[in-house]
Amino acid sequence: MATPTPTRHRKRGHDPESVLSIAVGVFNERGYDGTSMEDLARALGVTKSAIYYHVPGKEQLLARALDRALDGLFELMADERAASGTAIERLEWVVRQSVRILVDRLPYVTLLLRVRGNSGTEQAALERRREFDRFIGRLVTEAAAEGDIRPDVDPALVTRLLFGAVTSISEWYQPARGASADDLADALLKMAFGGLRV
Amino acid sequence: MATPTPTRHRKRGHDPESVLSIAVGVFNERGYDGTSMEDLARALGVTKSAIYYHVPGKEQLLARALDRALDGLFELMADERAASGTAIERLEWVVRQSVRILVDRLPYVTLLLRVRGNSGTEQAALERRREFDRFIGRLVTEAAAEGDIRPDVDPALVTRLLFGAVTSISEWYQPARGASADDLADALLKMAFGGLRV
Repeated sequence: MATPTPTRHRKRGHDPESVLSIAVGVFNERGYDGTSMEDLARALGVTKSAIYYHVPGKEQLLARALDRALDGLFELMADERAASGTAIERLEWVVRQSVRILVDRLPYVTLLLRVRGNSGTEQAALERRREFDRFIGRLVTEAAAEGDIRPDVDPALVTRLLFGAVTSISEWYQPARGASADDLADALLKMAFGGLRV
Repeated sequence: MATPTPTRHRKRGHDPESVLSIAVGVFNERGYDGTSMEDLARALGVTKSAIYYHVPGKEQLLARALDRALDGLFELMADERAASGTAIERLEWVVRQSVRILVDRLPYVTLLLRVRGNSGTEQAALERRREFDRFIGRLVTEAAAEGDIRPDVDPALVTRLLFGAVTSISEWYQPARGASADDLADALLKMAFGGLRV
């Protein structure tokens, strides 16, 4: 809200938020492992030595970027709407909110989805991601136990496929082209919970 | 069928099939751009100069690997079962067969799904992939026009989400752990066409 314009224009010129945002763009384009501090300096328009004025290192930026995605998912889990009502209602709410987070934090979630565990930072992020996956898995199992999900599908498989559809959005979604987070969530919920067949 | 065991054991030791298979494993692990001819030689257990006896270059291996995935999808499109019956029946058949191809050719499809268009070979593969995507898009639109898909979803969005769930399989499927291609396809078709809600 109150981002101070002067800061953005001060000598050597970037606030932490714009440094993070530009860095994530470079990570997604070149791959995190393929990005050097020199690449980051170039993208920021600063000299290679000035980059250390903005950021101690690549991995610290990665950690902040992954947290940006994961904190959103963890806020979901802590929300009371994820804890009250029938399991299937909570599941649908969580799917819708996950789509919203993905759209709102697209580059951060895209980066998260590419993490393979090549460092301590990546392993910590994967562990948090697995915690979210387990949370979803429990919701699906609970909804099945409450009799609201068809009994002839394996909850674990369904969890994977459902969130496979969610995460795929990061591969093809083009914010400029129209569909809102709600349009995406509506289409996904109708397909996955109501079924495409008339 | 008649793969000659002697060839596999001849001096310097690899038939073209095993070279391709080992190379694709390395590409998927290190990324294609991050793989050097030296990495390939090491994985094959041959010297850096001997690698050229097996393969003229990296890009030729990439082209063969991507064709391995794409040829499967193109055979689907040419199959008469993709051309007769109602659109929704054809669509369901194509989804099931796509899952089968993904599972049968997992490392090749995984490689294809990571292609970003960084070379002529990658661009040609993306163009073939887009042709398959358009084929699916037409099937969904046709099924909607025939009144077999609920009218309150955008066919283009549904196509993306449905195949998002299919392609996500390459991210989490572990062949050794059990579910067969048919199990996966059953769960996906039940969820996407029948709906999860009882």
